[in-house]
Amino acid sequence: MKRKILIVGGVAGGASAAARLRRLSEEDEIVMFEKGPHVSFSNCSLPYHLSGLIDEADKMVLMSPEKFLVQYNIQAKVNNEVLSINKEEKYVVVKNLVSGESYKENYDKLILSPGAKPIVPNILGIEEANIFTIRNVVDIDKLNKYIKSIDVKDIAVIGGGFIGVEAAENLREAGYNVALIEGTDQILRPFDYDMVQILHKEIYDHGINLIVEDKVERFEKDTVILASGKKISSKVVVMAIGVSPETTLAKEAAIDIGETGAIKVDQNYRTADKDIYAVGDAIEVYNALTHTVAKLFLAGPALKQARAVADHINGKKALNKGYIGSSAIKVFDYNGASTGLNEALINVLNMKIKYEVVRVILSDKVGIMPSSAPMHFKLLFEVPTGKILGAQAIGKGDVTKRIDVVATAIKFGGTIEDLKDLELCYAPPFSTAKDVVNYAGYVGSNLLNGDFKQVNVDLVRGLVEHNAYIIDVRERGEYANGHIKNAVNIPLSELRQRVNEIPKEKPVYLHCRTGQRSYNATLALQNLGYNNVYNITGSFLGLSFYEYFNDKTKNRESILTEYNFR
Amino acid sequence: MKRKILIVGGVAGGASAAARLRRLSEEDEIVMFEKGPHVSFSNCSLPYHLSGLIDEADKMVLMSPEKFLVQYNIQAKVNNEVLSINKEEKYVVVKNLVSGESYKENYDKLILSPGAKPIVPNILGIEEANIFTIRNVVDIDKLNKYIKSIDVKDIAVIGGGFIGVEAAENLREAGYNVALIEGTDQILRPFDYDMVQILHKEIYDHGINLIVEDKVERFEKDTVILASGKKISSKVVVMAIGVSPETTLAKEAAIDIGETGAIKVDQNYRTADKDIYAVGDAIEVYNALTHTVAKLFLAGPALKQARAVADHINGKKALNKGYIGSSAIKVFDYNGASTGLNEALINVLNMKIKYEVVRVILSDKVGIMPSSAPMHFKLLFEVPTGKILGAQAIGKGDVTKRIDVVATAIKFGGTIEDLKDLELCYAPPFSTAKDVVNYAGYVGSNLLNGDFKQVNVDLVRGLVEHNAYIIDVRERGEYANGHIKNAVNIPLSELRQRVNEIPKEKPVYLHCRTGQRSYNATLALQNLGYNNVYNITGSFLGLSFYEYFNDKTKNRESILTEYNFR
Repeated sequence: MKRKILIVGGVAGGASAAARLRRLSEEDEIVMFEKGPHVSFSNCSLPYHLSGLIDEADKMVLMSPEKFLVQYNIQAKVNNEVLSINKEEKYVVVKNLVSGESYKENYDKLILSPGAKPIVPNILGIEEANIFTIRNVVDIDKLNKYIKSIDVKDIAVIGGGFIGVEAAENLREAGYNVALIEGTDQILRPFDYDMVQILHKEIYDHGINLIVEDKVERFEKDTVILASGKKISSKVVVMAIGVSPETTLAKEAAIDIGETGAIKVDQNYRTADKDIYAVGDAIEVYNALTHTVAKLFLAGPALKQARAVADHINGKKALNKGYIGSSAIKVFDYNGASTGLNEALINVLNMKIKYEVVRVILSDKVGIMPSSAPMHFKLLFEVPTGKILGAQAIGKGDVTKRIDVVATAIKFGGTIEDLKDLELCYAPPFSTAKDVVNYAGYVGSNLLNGDFKQVNVDLVRGLVEHNAYIIDVRERGEYANGHIKNAVNIPLSELRQRVNEIPKEKPVYLHCRTGQRSYNATLALQNLGYNNVYNITGSFLGLSFYEYFNDKTKNRESILTEYNFR
Repeated sequence: MKRKILIVGGVAGGASAAARLRRLSEEDEIVMFEKGPHVSFSNCSLPYHLSGLIDEADKMVLMSPEKFLVQYNIQAKVNNEVLSINKEEKYVVVKNLVSGESYKENYDKLILSPGAKPIVPNILGIEEANIFTIRNVVDIDKLNKYIKSIDVKDIAVIGGGFIGVEAAENLREAGYNVALIEGTDQILRPFDYDMVQILHKEIYDHGINLIVEDKVERFEKDTVILASGKKISSKVVVMAIGVSPETTLAKEAAIDIGETGAIKVDQNYRTADKDIYAVGDAIEVYNALTHTVAKLFLAGPALKQARAVADHINGKKALNKGYIGSSAIKVFDYNGASTGLNEALINVLNMKIKYEVVRVILSDKVGIMPSSAPMHFKLLFEVPTGKILGAQAIGKGDVTKRIDVVATAIKFGGTIEDLKDLELCYAPPFSTAKDVVNYAGYVGSNLLNGDFKQVNVDLVRGLVEHNAYIIDVRERGEYANGHIKNAVNIPLSELRQRVNEIPKEKPVYLHCRTGQRSYNATLALQNLGYNNVYNITGSFLGLSFYEYFNDKTKNRESILTEYNFR
């Protein structure tokens, strides 16, 4: 039975659905409408054109309409915008943006993959500003050509999400003076506040004027005025405060929109109309960890949805397992990755879940390999089940590997006990024999069993202010090079001889550089009869990153000295 | 209750057990005996000293006896060899190798972690050869100093296991003329024959004289004579044909040795004597996939066993889930990783398991990122359950990530269906939105459902010889640059117009460069009524690697030309 299947939107979800539909049937007529001039371009690669890492904009266009036609017998109609849907008579009205003519196309099945559009808020004086957004190849090409054609030095990027950060990084790599302005207290929300400070520092250290907790109040010519009164010189403004699902077409066709503002679909990505499906950034999906629907602007899920829709149209059924959300970003020399829940999200959703946090810093490879570097790793698990809820990793090495492993474990409903047993590949150029993921499993199990207690890095300032008893178990030379105010130095190597110096009647807080020596010291003190001992998670290295950007009372140079940054 | 716990061997397993024992109890007396001069050195890093990547041998020693004492209150007695065990009276006799004196040490619990020793076979003329082995820091320091002190240019490495290959690579990086001699038809047995050809080529292309299927017949002065009659000039011979568990001490104490020749232990790594445990390379372990016991010379499992033993001694019990074996190796610009079963092992063990093979080649990152490269991926799954049995990946990029994900899935009893749903981190610098692991899940599901058929790359030569009908669906320009003999060029872009050229009465074999276009062509032909269509796994790129080293009928230059290597 030959069917006519129309697809609105020819990028990730649309193009992927079309190709899968063709593999499942040679008979069907498949037509894809894209209002822009390109189908199947690499959305996520766009910012890398600004630094020249991807030298030609055309390279980001992966498939041409001609190729779709000859290789897949798929009609890809670019510069053709679908204006309306008639659900009763099953046709769409399409406008050819080149000729200006409109026409009808009937369908048996319709797939909506319109994506999401950059939000441009109505800020005072915005017509004065030279605003650019980044959604497609045309946008990035325009921005890139513009900044190279005129005498631009200062560029403001508004918004610290993935696109904002990647745009800022790549513009900085290209030599521009970049201000990155974020309204909340942190960039990149997949990372918790304590973790993201590492990336704040990295961005700041690379000469980007990173401003958090400050909003754009108004624009003047070549200037962004912030709520704080700060004036940011910028001949070009990249607006990247976020995207919103492209739902105009759906709304006008009375297709249900969910509470999130995205298109509502069932478990088969079908709208309330049995012949209309929707996929990608325009829809809301079920989160398997929060048990709520949410928007999810990620390419991987869009491709999975596209495949599921093509399969469903062809009678192949599968369970919708929901999504947990895994993402990654490169920020200059650092890599960050995350999966599942983080603390901020649990708070925002006001989830009643009880959880505990593992926070460790471990070498990403055998320490003596020249390229080894510390990896900061945070993992959340449910109490009392031990079920893994989410993880974040930041470091110069292979963080995506560790988060992919955790994401896999979460998909199987894994616990921290399971992480202990994982057999991960080891050779000195790649990892350590006891990988950070295994190690997190050990620490998590110990926490769950009540074998030791910990206090998080963000509470250290309070401890110091309240004159808590903090022991720095690093060696004397390390302590001398910088330490927490009022911390007592009892190196692990002197702990047992000097144990009588340590008071038994009050809480004892321990740290070292990465938390491993202080963990050993914590257990030793407990075994020596101390009942109120806490390991400081993140330890000195985590703390130093934490304080660097967070501490607004000191200048950053003095923090560099205090924390002996290498 | 204070106990005295003795540990024989102070490297990975021994040192790790000691530290964990201390964390669990401050009271116990813990003494570790090591016959060599170093405890806790990085075993797996040794070969990297030969190239100078690790510049000083001392760096590989991670902990000193002094540090063990002051930081952990553990006595680490180096240069002390345990000569015998008296199980009845529970003491060991130890010889101080410096003073020459022997003494007794009583124990409550004894942990054996003696490791494995390099095998040096009794070959004719071996006393003429300048034989070195690599087991510890002393060995590698001796070898390194020797080759740098005299006028050595030619070095022969005997044995193509991990140590042999890493030694050969690092010696080559240091500028030596290296011959790598392997008795069987391939190096690195964790990889199947079809996959390992990529590494054969890489080694060969880096100027190592790689010789497979040839054995050392005898040694003459500065010369290795092979069974083939080949003479290999070599002032230095590195013997790396394998290792055998160090069992002398156990045997003399009448501790059971298993059929594999390694120490037999129960589910808690305890020997038949309830107070004697054994861990690491000296023991045999249960393989959860083959359901047999086997030797496993890997660092990760040794550390897991050490922890399990320390826990068991302290009353903490855990299930022994067995091992699947995950490993990795860097070979010049290529990385290789594997986990679980491979085809060779299934054959060797004569396992009755029915399985199917997914073999795909996919870009390791978004193709337009400058550092992207093809990743060769092979995955085995059980038929009809779809249960994942093992995987291998080889490429210039992040292969360990993909294998770690599969290893994690195997630990959870995952199937190819599960791989489809995995949400892996994606950003252009790290991966693609549909990762090779997801893709393997798709291909595996299609195979299991009978949606298409395939034929493996190693059978292509036979097909060519029997005049099979092979279609090369690459574009004309690609075909013109080199192709399989007698293959018909019908580019995917011309397939539907030229379909009447393709015979319906005989099998049709399809390939392209990596297998993706030919997969689309395979499904298209099936949907057009062809019932006997096969996709060639590994495709042209896999085939070109396969033929390069395997084909002994042609010289390699002509293969380079035929296959248009870039």
